[in-house]
This record gives sequence, C-alpha cells and structure tokens, in this order.
Amino acid sequence: MSDLLALAAELVDIPSVSRAEAALADRVEAELAGCPHLEVQRLGDTVLARTDLGRAQRVVLAGHLDTVPPSGPPGARVDGDVLRGLGAVDMKGGLAVLLDLATTVVDPTLDVTYVLYACEEVERAANALGQIARDRPELLVADVAVLGEPTGGAVEAGCQGTMRARLSVTGRRAHTARPWTGVNAVHRLAPVLAALERYEPRRVVLDACEYAEQLQAVAVDGGVAGNVVPDRASVTLNYRFAPDRDAPGARAALEALVAGAIDPARGDSLEVLDVAVGAPPALGHPVLGALVAATGRAPRAKVGWTDVATFWEIGVPATNFGPGDPLLAHTPDEHVWRGELEHARAVLGAVLGGLS
Amino acid sequence: MSDLLALAAELVDIPSVSRAEAALADRVEAELAGCPHLEVQRLGDTVLARTDLGRAQRVVLAGHLDTVPPSGPPGARVDGDVLRGLGAVDMKGGLAVLLDLATTVVDPTLDVTYVLYACEEVERAANALGQIARDRPELLVADVAVLGEPTGGAVEAGCQGTMRARLSVTGRRAHTARPWTGVNAVHRLAPVLAALERYEPRRVVLDACEYAEQLQAVAVDGGVAGNVVPDRASVTLNYRFAPDRDAPGARAALEALVAGAIDPARGDSLEVLDVAVGAPPALGHPVLGALVAATGRAPRAKVGWTDVATFWEIGVPATNFGPGDPLLAHTPDEHVWRGELEHARAVLGAVLGGLS
Repeated sequence: MSDLLALAAELVDIPSVSRAEAALADRVEAELAGCPHLEVQRLGDTVLARTDLGRAQRVVLAGHLDTVPPSGPPGARVDGDVLRGLGAVDMKGGLAVLLDLATTVVDPTLDVTYVLYACEEVERAANALGQIARDRPELLVADVAVLGEPTGGAVEAGCQGTMRARLSVTGRRAHTARPWTGVNAVHRLAPVLAALERYEPRRVVLDACEYAEQLQAVAVDGGVAGNVVPDRASVTLNYRFAPDRDAPGARAALEALVAGAIDPARGDSLEVLDVAVGAPPALGHPVLGALVAATGRAPRAKVGWTDVATFWEIGVPATNFGPGDPLLAHTPDEHVWRGELEHARAVLGAVLGGLS
Repeated sequence: MSDLLALAAELVDIPSVSRAEAALADRVEAELAGCPHLEVQRLGDTVLARTDLGRAQRVVLAGHLDTVPPSGPPGARVDGDVLRGLGAVDMKGGLAVLLDLATTVVDPTLDVTYVLYACEEVERAANALGQIARDRPELLVADVAVLGEPTGGAVEAGCQGTMRARLSVTGRRAHTARPWTGVNAVHRLAPVLAALERYEPRRVVLDACEYAEQLQAVAVDGGVAGNVVPDRASVTLNYRFAPDRDAPGARAALEALVAGAIDPARGDSLEVLDVAVGAPPALGHPVLGALVAATGRAPRAKVGWTDVATFWEIGVPATNFGPGDPLLAHTPDEHVWRGELEHARAVLGAVLGGLS
C-alpha cells in the first residue's frame, strides 16, 4: 500500500478542472500502463483499466478526474495527516485509493474495471461516463459498480433523481398607476411560494435507507419595466425525487404539488427543463452487501444525483462509497484525513480480496 | 379655428420618437415664429412661445413633442372623424389644440407661455421640461399651468407620486439535495408577495378628487444555479402615493407595508431606487376652477405621475387637461375623435378668453 495521503496530494497538485483533465489522465494512464495485470485503454481524457482473470463476477470501480473551478489557493497543502486543496475531497482522495488498488491488488477475487473519467462536474451531456454508457456500453459491463465519490466512509446507497421545471404564470400588462386594468403575474406567484414554504418532504424507505425528497425554488424571474404591471413571471424548481419514481411519476408528483397555485386555463404552465432519474439502493446484491459489511457503518441514502444512476440505466446495480466528508465538496475548506483514505482502501480491498 | 383633426394628422405624420423630435420642433417653431403676437425661443428641440400683454396673470400651456417608439404601422390614418396613428392620443391631438390656440388666440385675457417640449416619454433626467425647470426656471414663471396630456376632456387634477424600491431578502446557499443546510431566499419572498396580494389601497380625498394609492411588484429576481438553494432574492416595487405624502413619508409608508415580511437583522433591506413626489390638485386656484367649470365635467384625480409635479416643484399650481382617452396612450390602437379635439380647444379657449 502506498502513502495514500502523499499520493492524493500529488494528484491535487495536477490541476484538472473539467475539460482540462489531460495532464492528470496522462499521469494515471502512465501508472496503470506499467501494471502487467491490467489492460489499459484511453478514450479522450478518460482512462479505463481492467483485469481479465476469468472471475465469476466483475465490479466497476469508478471515479472522476475533474474538479470544479478553484475557489482557494492552488496546489496541495499537507499538514500532518490532513490534506487540503482543490479536489482533496471531491475526489482526488478517492482517486488515490482507486489508483492504489489498481496497482497493488494484482489477484482480486472479482474481476475489476477501473474507470477514471472526465467531465463529471459539468453538464450531464459532457459527462464522459455518460458518453461511454451511451456509445460504448460494453466497456462498462459488470455485475455491480462502486462510485468513489466522497461519502464519509459509509455506503451512500443509490441516488435520488432530479428534475428542473419552470412554473410560469400569466398576467395582463397595465400601467402601475392603474393596476386594476391588468393582472400582476408576480403577485400570482404568492401561492406558489407559499406552497413551497409549506412543502413537507415525502420520505421513502428502501433497503433500510430513507430517501427524503426535496423541492426548492432555484430561480425566480419576472418584470417588464418600472411602471408596468408584469404579464409573466416564473419560478424554476428543482425537485429531488426518490428512486421509486420514474420521470413521468416525478412530473406527476410535481404537478400535484403545485396544482392549486397554477391555472392552465389562464395559460399558466409547468415545463420540465431536464430530468435525471435516480437509482435504487440495490443493497440486496451480494457484493454491495459485502461492501456495507466491510465499512462497519450503517448505509444511508444518497440524496443527491450521482453517476450510480448512469450505471443503473445500463443495468448495473451501483452504490457510492469513498473517503471524505461530502459536505466539504465544492467548498474552499475541502480537506481529507489520512485515516479516511486508509479506511476506504481497506474496505474496498476487503471486497476485492486478493490483497497484495 | 383650424381643422384640428387635419392638423393633428399632420403632426402624427412627422415622426418624433423621444430624442428625435427635431423635425417636429422645426415645424412647430416655424408656425409659431410667424405669429407677431408671440415671442418664440428654441432650446434644443423644445419650443417656447409667449405673449407679453401685461395681463394680471400668466398661464403656461404645455405639451410634449415626443412619442414612445412605434408599435404599429407608421403615419396617420384618418377615417371620417377619427385619427389613428402613433401619438394621436399621447399627445399630438393635444399639441394640435395648443398650436391652434397659440396661433389664433391673439388677444387672451391671461398672458400665455406655450411650452412644447422634448423627451417626456423617457427617463426623468432627460425630460426637457425638468431641465428647464432646473436650469432656466424664469422661463416657466406663471400663476398656473395646464399640461395638455390626454385626460378624456375632464380635468385630471394634480398627480400621485411614484417610488421604486427594491426589497431584498437574504438566505444561505446550500445544495438543493440538502436544503436544510441553507435558507432559501426565494421561498422567503412568499410573505412579501402575500402582503402585496392583501394590499388595500389607501384613499385620500383632496379638492373632491379621490387619490387611490397603488403598490405593485414590477420585477422579481433571484437564483444562483439549477442545483443551489439561492441566497438572495428581490422584488422591485412601484408605489404610487397620494400627493399628501412627501418622499420621506412615502418611504415610511412603504416600510410599514412590508415590515412584517422582512428582517433587517438578517440583512434584508428596502432600497429606494428613485422617487418623484406628486402634486396636489390645487383646484382652489381661480384659473383652474374656471378650467374645471369650462369642461362641464367633474374633475378627478390623476393617478399616474405627470409633469404637473415639475410645475408644482417650482411653485406653479398645475393640472392635466387634454383630448383623448388616457387608457389608449402607448397602445397600438391609439385614436382620437374630432369632437374630442374641438372640445378641448373650446374649453381652453374659454379659459384664455379673447377668442379670435
């Protein structure tokens, strides 16, 4: 086993903001290409490496190479057993664990496909894992997958879906000195916002994990001019829905939630802007069950959307497991402890067996 | 008396969108310069013409030369006794009446200053009447003023003030999958919009004219990204306040109206963007009283802000009176009837006396 904190620091020191992952992909590819037990393939700035030992089962271990843009000073700072720097948590700590496993676990009891991919932190269309799932799904064929996103060392099972929708209400323009000749669309948002304030999350328990749905306004917009009663206004909603709902089900639920506040007969509308369905926890799968057991911690639901849904879409049960506090992701205070990296390495090593 | 409908049509046929009034100012200046009883002065694209007959009192008759930008086909269309076209109501019908008075009432019983000015339909800083009031107030010295804006042939007395203010509420950013770690500023607008919906106009009676105040949201804005709980949101308000309130009084009233919905301790704020105070009806002034009597109609309050406030600010009691339905102003269906022009001409002629 390497010095995982030093390896993670080395990865943090190679900048890899989304769409600029080449240098990090080069580094990772070079390291994996030196391993005789791995077959390495590069697709753009995504690196895949697989064992082919004829095992009865295959697991994908996946993680993204890219980070969000910097919000603090560049580079890694190691202070004792703590690593700080862009990506320390999301997810170069996890990458260090995956890289160490790939290079040191030469005789696993499961065949493994490592997928270290580009463009996870940007729009879904650019996501390299999604592109491979669509264009080269044979590369991701496996019985099960583990996504190394930071989960604080516990399994965060499945993921919730996410839908963005624009709720638009109409009005009729008028001069603000004579507003009774019109209808104020912004005022008509009052019951919409009141419904959002009153909203009580639906809670669904699957495989002992509770998925709490969420509904938030993420934008509000309206207005014509400083002396005009506005004739349109809109609220953009983000609905996080449990994995027992598909896209039509989520849309129907959202429509029901705002039904009292909009009136299609007046031209009000609810337009789905984009949707990504979630993935069930699938903890009944023996490999994922073994993963949970190895963590020594109770699994919990993943409330955000992650690429476990990308795996589920192509029929591969998947879960999130990796080092680092997920609440620190995308913050200037991102940091990870040596013990977190070593715990994740030990857990995944136990699942793969064949520890070197 | 000219053919007022033909004259108004001729004026409509000379385009004069705000800041492009030169051709119309040329036309008006040429006509007035041909009148021996008038002393004519041009300031930019504003034309002033005055009698100097040593009368005991002086009245300003004022109207703006500019129109809003076109929203229909260009040019005047006369169909029998109806004139259609950009500015027919606001306010080339009124300009035709003023021009006819200026050229034909050669021996009025009151001295008259005609002020035909530029840039009324744009931001107040560009308004030529306001500039003259500030820089050359001696040119507007008078006992009383009548502004020829369309009022449907009745006196619309004084005017209400107008204040625009931005109400901003704060929140705390969070991922929309974990909204409980933040505070949604857009949701916090719910009680603000509810207060606007509940708002009951304050009504004030002055000189038998009822001023009904109004409070409208004219814009709403907020949002960070599709997956972020927004940390700020704002509503821009337009408050139309009765002429018994000054600017500090209007601000205090607005603050009281939204007091329950914002919390300064959380960083919420109410920022006044601009304010223009109104003007009282001043119908006790004998000339304005005579004007009301000559209309044969009950006066009513002007609920919008007009340049009568500009006159009031320099100590000149003023009122609105002119031909055309004010509700048609700025609409593609702007039109004025011959009878409306002739009524306005007769009323103002009676006030000036000395009909030719």
